[in-house]
Amino acid sequence: MRLSDLGQFPLIERLTRIVASARPDVVVGISDDAAALDLGGEELVLAKVDSQVEGVHFRRDRIPPHSLGRRSLAIVLSDIAAMGGRPTHALASLALPADLEVAWVEDLYRGLREEGDRFGVAIVGGHTARSPVGILIDVCLLGRVSRARILTRAGARPGDAVLVTGSLGDAAAGLALLDNPRLHLPAAEREFLLARHLTPTPRLPESAVIAASALATAMIDLSDGLASDIGHVCNRSGVGVKLYADRLPISVAVGRVSERIGRAPWDLALGGGEDYELCFTAPAAAAPALAERVTAETSTPVTVVGEILPAPAGRWLVLPDGREVPLEAQGWRHF
Amino acid sequence: MRLSDLGQFPLIERLTRIVASARPDVVVGISDDAAALDLGGEELVLAKVDSQVEGVHFRRDRIPPHSLGRRSLAIVLSDIAAMGGRPTHALASLALPADLEVAWVEDLYRGLREEGDRFGVAIVGGHTARSPVGILIDVCLLGRVSRARILTRAGARPGDAVLVTGSLGDAAAGLALLDNPRLHLPAAEREFLLARHLTPTPRLPESAVIAASALATAMIDLSDGLASDIGHVCNRSGVGVKLYADRLPISVAVGRVSERIGRAPWDLALGGGEDYELCFTAPAAAAPALAERVTAETSTPVTVVGEILPAPAGRWLVLPDGREVPLEAQGWRHF
Repeated sequence: MRLSDLGQFPLIERLTRIVASARPDVVVGISDDAAALDLGGEELVLAKVDSQVEGVHFRRDRIPPHSLGRRSLAIVLSDIAAMGGRPTHALASLALPADLEVAWVEDLYRGLREEGDRFGVAIVGGHTARSPVGILIDVCLLGRVSRARILTRAGARPGDAVLVTGSLGDAAAGLALLDNPRLHLPAAEREFLLARHLTPTPRLPESAVIAASALATAMIDLSDGLASDIGHVCNRSGVGVKLYADRLPISVAVGRVSERIGRAPWDLALGGGEDYELCFTAPAAAAPALAERVTAETSTPVTVVGEILPAPAGRWLVLPDGREVPLEAQGWRHF
Repeated sequence: MRLSDLGQFPLIERLTRIVASARPDVVVGISDDAAALDLGGEELVLAKVDSQVEGVHFRRDRIPPHSLGRRSLAIVLSDIAAMGGRPTHALASLALPADLEVAWVEDLYRGLREEGDRFGVAIVGGHTARSPVGILIDVCLLGRVSRARILTRAGARPGDAVLVTGSLGDAAAGLALLDNPRLHLPAAEREFLLARHLTPTPRLPESAVIAASALATAMIDLSDGLASDIGHVCNRSGVGVKLYADRLPISVAVGRVSERIGRAPWDLALGGGEDYELCFTAPAAAAPALAERVTAETSTPVTVVGEILPAPAGRWLVLPDGREVPLEAQGWRHF
């Protein structure tokens, strides 16, 4: 069987079984946004690696190297945010074609540095290898988190509300703009969507407020799309979920793009992926106040988009017309 | 200017300047075998990332996936050994063609697991992405080291002896066997050299004895070849060096291969690369006893191959006929 027949998540499950081990110093293993390790300090050490592959995650003619550097770090910063942690140090491993311009690589590194400086991260390792063809950027990010405040995908309970930061579908709409250069949009909206696609903002300040509240029960970052990512929370927490299409936070710009490309805005918001917003759960009674607190301290809107159900109740999407349909993972297809 | 015009080490220097920062929690930064970080524990946390790129570091038809998994972890285990540290946790990031067999990836993971188990390392992260063409494996390894016992490339002093573990040139000779399938060699020697090339053994037990002795002044692992790697020690320590070609530890098998391919054995040993032996320095008076101690506790031979000089004395190789020639980095060409 080939990878394309098996698919990403079954593959990860198989590989996870091969390397799984029960060690007291592995507090959170391969199954979450980042690993959480006991390395002898009072706090846990968080570790995460993710990659940007040319021709798969980016095209060289569409993203300036500086933005690509920022983005390569941002996507792992988002994982540390999802654990309620603080990022500290990053190592970058680059595979580069020999005919690549040195200036291009330097600009990429300036982007890494700028994004690191924004969030207190030092770049402490920088392996480079020759690549026979395209560019590949792997970033390994370390962070710290208090043992009492760590948030994982496991912990959501029936009766919890499901909340998301920011707005959803922006990155997918930005990608649609790049795919359809003749799609007309007001300049400000166009710029907003492209920035959301090219240089996502890791929600670290928001994560800090959420973790400090001690109210959230589970958290994940939205890399594949809400419909897919909430499924990971359901799997790990052993719960079901109901999401409401008409409660999803959707920007005016996404509304306009979805009209032009003939796709429902909630469809872009659920399946688009790469928004790198946070999705978290908290007891329904506490959710509105928690959402307000995050917004008050960070200016980022937070929206209740659904509720956690017992596992046997299943996973559902309530459409704008009131019909309930099974919630299907429709995010990014990796293989 | 293109990467191929600039070369690996000048590129790393430029990139290092871009991300360099002085932070008290970065005890050793981008300039050594691994970064050493203060993450709040009594010990320092070591972190290192390295990659294996298809068509550059390996060919799929020449190395079984299980061996490649072991090798991908071994090369970073060697870096933790070079710092005098103990490895603890690894994260693997794979870029894989969609038409790759699932069984191939599972075998790779079994190799990772086996190598991890041998040295007490848990695999705690496993990102996979689609690759448009070849296979790329990035492994990020974490470890721990006592603040008092850490060994870096800086610290060698004039009057120190230069020592190496094991034998040199075996991996290069193994590669020569693969490149020349008709090169005849006794089966046992052939197997020995191929194993040294395909699945190098990280010198962790040896490193533990060296670090515990508190006698060593600097250490590095031999990935590019002694002639190139000792240059990093000289650069970081601000010293010169003299190596003796006829003191290099060379296996009978390397002697035989070098004869067949018309290259001096000491040339293979100095420039071959990928042996993943340790090279370290210690005061000359203490060196023989330290070498004996390592061998007594690990059964691995340790050889004095040269001496550290003051920087102005330069870097020299003493040939078997007594002539002194400038020591030139002749290791692995990255771009």
